Amino acid sequence: MTFTQRHLLGLEGMSAEALTALLDTAASFKEISERDIKKVPALRGKTVINLFYEPSTRTRTSFEIAAKRLSADTINLSASASSVSKGETLADVARNLEAMRPDALVLRHPLSGACALVARHVSCPVVNAGDGCHEHPTQALLDCLTIRERRGRIAGLTVAIVGDLLHSRVGRSNIHALRALGARVRLVGPPTLVPREFAALGCELRTRLEDGVRDADVIMMLRIQRERMGRNFFPSLEEYAHYYCLTEAALDHARPDVVILHPGPLNRGLEIASSVADGPYSLIMNQVTNGLAVRMAVLYLLVARSKLAQAGEEPRTERDAATEEPVRGLGGGRA
Amino acid sequence: MTFTQRHLLGLEGMSAEALTALLDTAASFKEISERDIKKVPALRGKTVINLFYEPSTRTRTSFEIAAKRLSADTINLSASASSVSKGETLADVARNLEAMRPDALVLRHPLSGACALVARHVSCPVVNAGDGCHEHPTQALLDCLTIRERRGRIAGLTVAIVGDLLHSRVGRSNIHALRALGARVRLVGPPTLVPREFAALGCELRTRLEDGVRDADVIMMLRIQRERMGRNFFPSLEEYAHYYCLTEAALDHARPDVVILHPGPLNRGLEIASSVADGPYSLIMNQVTNGLAVRMAVLYLLVARSKLAQAGEEPRTERDAATEEPVRGLGGGRA
Amino acid sequence: MTFTQRHLLGLEGMSAEALTALLDTAASFKEISERDIKKVPALRGKTVINLFYEPSTRTRTSFEIAAKRLSADTINLSASASSVSKGETLADVARNLEAMRPDALVLRHPLSGACALVARHVSCPVVNAGDGCHEHPTQALLDCLTIRERRGRIAGLTVAIVGDLLHSRVGRSNIHALRALGARVRLVGPPTLVPREFAALGCELRTRLEDGVRDADVIMMLRIQRERMGRNFFPSLEEYAHYYCLTEAALDHARPDVVILHPGPLNRGLEIASSVADGPYSLIMNQVTNGLAVRMAVLYLLVARSKLAQAGEEPRTERDAATEEPVRGLGGGRA
Repeated sequence: MTFTQRHLLGLEGMSAEALTALLDTAASFKEISERDIKKVPALRGKTVINLFYEPSTRTRTSFEIAAKRLSADTINLSASASSVSKGETLADVARNLEAMRPDALVLRHPLSGACALVARHVSCPVVNAGDGCHEHPTQALLDCLTIRERRGRIAGLTVAIVGDLLHSRVGRSNIHALRALGARVRLVGPPTLVPREFAALGCELRTRLEDGVRDADVIMMLRIQRERMGRNFFPSLEEYAHYYCLTEAALDHARPDVVILHPGPLNRGLEIASSVADGPYSLIMNQVTNGLAVRMAVLYLLVARSKLAQAGEEPRTERDAATEEPVRGLGGGRA
Repeated sequence: MTFTQRHLLGLEGMSAEALTALLDTAASFKEISERDIKKVPALRGKTVINLFYEPSTRTRTSFEIAAKRLSADTINLSASASSVSKGETLADVARNLEAMRPDALVLRHPLSGACALVARHVSCPVVNAGDGCHEHPTQALLDCLTIRERRGRIAGLTVAIVGDLLHSRVGRSNIHALRALGARVRLVGPPTLVPREFAALGCELRTRLEDGVRDADVIMMLRIQRERMGRNFFPSLEEYAHYYCLTEAALDHARPDVVILHPGPLNRGLEIASSVADGPYSLIMNQVTNGLAVRMAVLYLLVARSKLAQAGEEPRTERDAATEEPVRGLGGGRA
Repeated sequence: MTFTQRHLLGLEGMSAEALTALLDTAASFKEISERDIKKVPALRGKTVINLFYEPSTRTRTSFEIAAKRLSADTINLSASASSVSKGETLADVARNLEAMRPDALVLRHPLSGACALVARHVSCPVVNAGDGCHEHPTQALLDCLTIRERRGRIAGLTVAIVGDLLHSRVGRSNIHALRALGARVRLVGPPTLVPREFAALGCELRTRLEDGVRDADVIMMLRIQRERMGRNFFPSLEEYAHYYCLTEAALDHARPDVVILHPGPLNRGLEIASSVADGPYSLIMNQVTNGLAVRMAVLYLLVARSKLAQAGEEPRTERDAATEEPVRGLGGGRA
């Protein structure tokens, strides 16, 4: 057990050991969702609050299902339903939720750093579900799990991340995780979207798609987030697609056993051709399945650690949790 | 057990035996909601996703309560909170949800055929909770259950369906179910809303309300869905109400033991007078109560069948499920 | 056990005995949220519907967590997702929900009296979560619990309620509760917001803040609800803040052991200075924690009473509920 954080705010600076501990736990949780009864009592009687200030289908759903399969109670709060419109500060919202004694707070927010701010105001673990252009750690973890699952390792692989690196919290979290785990990371896109500063993160920068994917083991396409772009970073969507859409022709430059990732939702025909997204190299659906396991692992490790930190005990291994008998106590059975 | 479908997309073509199996199961589930502890463990550890692309109070709530009373975990997704705004296709949304291993997907969508499309992309059962002007099968099932409960049978009864047949998925599902179960079906409304093509479904068409309800055993009023009407199909709401509002005077033409159904929400004074909606012939509240039982039955039969299809076993009867002891395994007790 | 109401629509006219029974039950429920497994099976198999016609973070969340910690199933309905837009009456919405056999209906509505109207149409208990300018009983109960917890009693204390009494359902419920429990209540604000009619409720009226808080044991600040004010009741927000914002200077006039309450969300710098809201006299976070316990108590007492009223039995004490073993029967364990 080498994952000892109180919160999961980002992957920057996280050690290979801690990342590997998270991935191992996630891998061991995958089979729960393949069971007939897809539920373990690990977080029974715990309250997980999903606080989403941006719309989301898959991430919120993934966290909610993850919490429920661990038997936690879940509360969903979205910005439109919240008192944001009443002018309350984010810190006050956080303190108020904290006063109801949640066991974890999952936060998505349009501002970079929002999760770190909230973490300073609450005693429960905070999980960053995407904050501005900063980080989206569970997405990068699920990407790493998907790569490792298929290729057996991450160290030594060449991963090309293609698209709007500038605005991408997914890209940023992946750079941190993949570099820490020993991958070569190549960033591919027009200079407006892949600024030279990224080289300082230990990445190679390439402008042309064909060069970028050459001999790559993994191609990770980023979503063009039209809704997040304040001004134009390329002449037109058509021109972007012409140069950067991942087609079968572009795949010829990659390794024959290349795998394709995309965080979704897909802009089919813009950053990725349908034939590639739905083709044999695509692991896009595996990513979604692994995302659930990653979020189960993150919630389990953070909440269990939080509890045990108080009790001064060591957490049991994730294997114990996944297979344990009903939790003792109220409503759990075992007279 | 004669209900063997993987999905519930519509009632068109469903046999009387399959319909009766659904109604019998629903009838046996009714008492669960009258218990002190309104819950059975039949779907413990299962995940039911409600994906609603149109607003709905009663249908979504009914499915959600139904799933919870079967001990399933429920996830609600509505169009405004989903990534529809991000340009994702419905098929991609479906595939993504599928990758999280739900056990059933309940879908409402403004486009006819949306549920059939989704069913082609997922391996879990899909339940149509209303798709465009196509079908709304659980509504028709609850209508049939309500009629059968009061009259002991459906075969041989004369059922008058009054209103906007053209746009009504409720009407269409009811025509299929009532005809299959042996009822005489009369469609009543102005020719703009009751096109002659409906005669091909084995229905009698009548234009005047008095003629339509004459000697009817059952009058099923449809809702005038102003929000769904792109252009005017009648001169004014006042004129529609003048000719087609079900008043106590109109009831004089029906059988003395006639019963009144309406799918809700009511437009009081437009298609139905308050005195009729709240009067002694009205079964409108029974419909809502039966809707819950129907949705419990549909979810139970589809999810149990889905599971057993994999295991190669025969499903237990619904009676077993309703009265069974705690499911063995994690969190269920029984050391 | 002296709390014998079917609904909790308001605190007007409630006896000190009934109020004390509610507060005692709430106090006994507090420790549940401090447990490792924050859950008791008291309302297992019960369905609690939260029907909110106004946006709310803390109240809806508080009720939802309260219900879940009692093991009830919860259903959330908000106005935007409801069929209100389809023109259905509130009474019809209520009757429809009732037909699905909920065990409690928690309602927030912009119209005063909406909860009383709904209560006439349903057989399950209705809990007022705020109706127009009328009452917000659980807020006042949590305020009373917070005061009593800190000061040991309410009788004989001087409580200054400051701000927009005219529009405040929080103020109104507090006046009823605090007066019934024997406190002296002083209302403080400009005459436009504190009309002289309030004197008839047994309150003293003061216009200047310094006079209002003089020798007060408790200062309860009300929120300036800009979103609820149809016209201007004071020249400007700046002028209001100048005269009525609770600053540390104003606190000098109160008793040295004064405590500060605010229902939230805070308008920092408008009705309360940040240094006061976050300072040593503030019990604002205690209020939120106590709100959860109050809502658990209200749901427990109303639902247990409702059940026992049918069975003709006496309810067990709240102590029994909080510590009981798993409920016998389905899914509860204890072979």
